[in-house]
Amino acid sequence: MERVPILKIGDTLLVSIQIDMEDQVALQLQEDLAERIVATGCGGVIIDISALDIVDSFVGRTLATIASVSRVLDAETLVVGMRPAVAITLVELGLSLPGIRTALNVELGMEMLARDHGDSEPDDTAMQDGDDAAVSAP
Amino acid sequence: MERVPILKIGDTLLVSIQIDMEDQVALQLQEDLAERIVATGCGGVIIDISALDIVDSFVGRTLATIASVSRVLDAETLVVGMRPAVAITLVELGLSLPGIRTALNVELGMEMLARDHGDSEPDDTAMQDGDDAAVSAP
Repeated sequence: MERVPILKIGDTLLVSIQIDMEDQVALQLQEDLAERIVATGCGGVIIDISALDIVDSFVGRTLATIASVSRVLDAETLVVGMRPAVAITLVELGLSLPGIRTALNVELGMEMLARDHGDSEPDDTAMQDGDDAAVSAP
Repeated sequence: MERVPILKIGDTLLVSIQIDMEDQVALQLQEDLAERIVATGCGGVIIDISALDIVDSFVGRTLATIASVSRVLDAETLVVGMRPAVAITLVELGLSLPGIRTALNVELGMEMLARDHGDSEPDDTAMQDGDDAAVSAP
């Protein structure tokens, strides 16, 4: 099975999606990412989708799930590199990726994450005692 | 046709190879990379191959060509993320990727490039000096 590699750069995990997001690949990526966030303590996740011609509802939902899981683990998710045509199609399909922050490219995304972290501490209470924290994805 | 996306991070271009390197894909990547190096003036290229199970002679040659083209354009190429099994197979096949510098992962690779640029102007002949290139995968 194909696996999407996760690259660590400073305090950020970078994922470049290039292959078709079938069910198994998407699930594996979610698991791998969650594990890497916990293992590395990274505060940011950047998902580059510049290689994708199409973002359908499944991919959209996958991205939303990743963002929610990351948030619970105290990491911020940014989707970067969306092609103009993809953005247009998404909106035409009624998928506006609610709850997902975007940036134009990886570099701007990393700046955005750095600014967020430099500005202020995120105000949600740390999820250290996360075992019984019943967190519902938005 | 598939295209491998090229991500710019600071003074470095990052390429994560995840799909099979068929002839057209490899050629396209070489062209795209050369164009991006010229367009951005980046001094470093990092190629992540952590997703590859196999590096055969064609991929090895492609990497070598990319490194040579980059060098001519005054950019340094690093191959990172090689799996241990890939390294073993490469050596068993008699392919030791001459002229290609390696690092264990993207983060170490970026540090290495930053150090090189901070230290001095890299001169082409430094390439084959064993010491510098000694950080290859185990």
